[in-house]
Amino acid sequence: MPMNTFAVSPIGIIHSSLKKPEDAPLFYNEGAPRATLEVFHAYRPGLHRMKTGDEIVIVTWLHLGDRSVLEVHPRGDLRNPLTGVFLTRSPDRPNPVGLHRAKVLKVADGYIEINAIEAIDQTPVIDIKPALDTNDD
Amino acid sequence: MPMNTFAVSPIGIIHSSLKKPEDAPLFYNEGAPRATLEVFHAYRPGLHRMKTGDEIVIVTWLHLGDRSVLEVHPRGDLRNPLTGVFLTRSPDRPNPVGLHRAKVLKVADGYIEINAIEAIDQTPVIDIKPALDTNDD
Repeated sequence: MPMNTFAVSPIGIIHSSLKKPEDAPLFYNEGAPRATLEVFHAYRPGLHRMKTGDEIVIVTWLHLGDRSVLEVHPRGDLRNPLTGVFLTRSPDRPNPVGLHRAKVLKVADGYIEINAIEAIDQTPVIDIKPALDTNDD
Repeated sequence: MPMNTFAVSPIGIIHSSLKKPEDAPLFYNEGAPRATLEVFHAYRPGLHRMKTGDEIVIVTWLHLGDRSVLEVHPRGDLRNPLTGVFLTRSPDRPNPVGLHRAKVLKVADGYIEINAIEAIDQTPVIDIKPALDTNDD
């Protein structure tokens, strides 16, 4: 069944010392450095009441992902059996959405300092949500 | 800083007995019914190795959301102070991405039966990911 396509406009961007995909951790935020999320001016009212210590889920658009990929060897290790991308966190997938849980270390003037994120520098951010204690993201 | 806009193409759709937004739970999956996620034919290789019991995160496009909204009264209750949408799970937000944790009850022929989801019938699905035990989605 064909459906509409939707347009996603980034609301912000990641600033990080991770400059290249090969610098990024192979799985989630293992060893990831601190980073800053810049929220663009027009969207800053959406941060109203955010504070240090908040746990958030950052939704990114993994813009370097290969959108034609449907199966991968997890973690890029050929010893892992070929697996559907929907069972992995691979950035190569039809809609390269990334989910990243982080803690707010500081928030001011549209800039959010966060404790760790495996996304590389200049990754577009498309949404931010509160993390839920019940692990149901 | 202006950035590119990205095109999201749904990979599937939710089938549910929740037919209207006003039938949906006000917060996450409180009281949500069982549902079925139909993955479109072209994307079914991405389900390879998925099995009953898997915990997944379903990423939806909340197509009825009002994308101009940046602040809301949480849960639609005026007694709750006006709060930035990025601190809420409101479907009204600049990019109306929804995150829904669910358990796979059965998967066959591109149809995934799931235990509960608060998304209404015909909600587009844009990605599926494995849930992480470490609560870091």
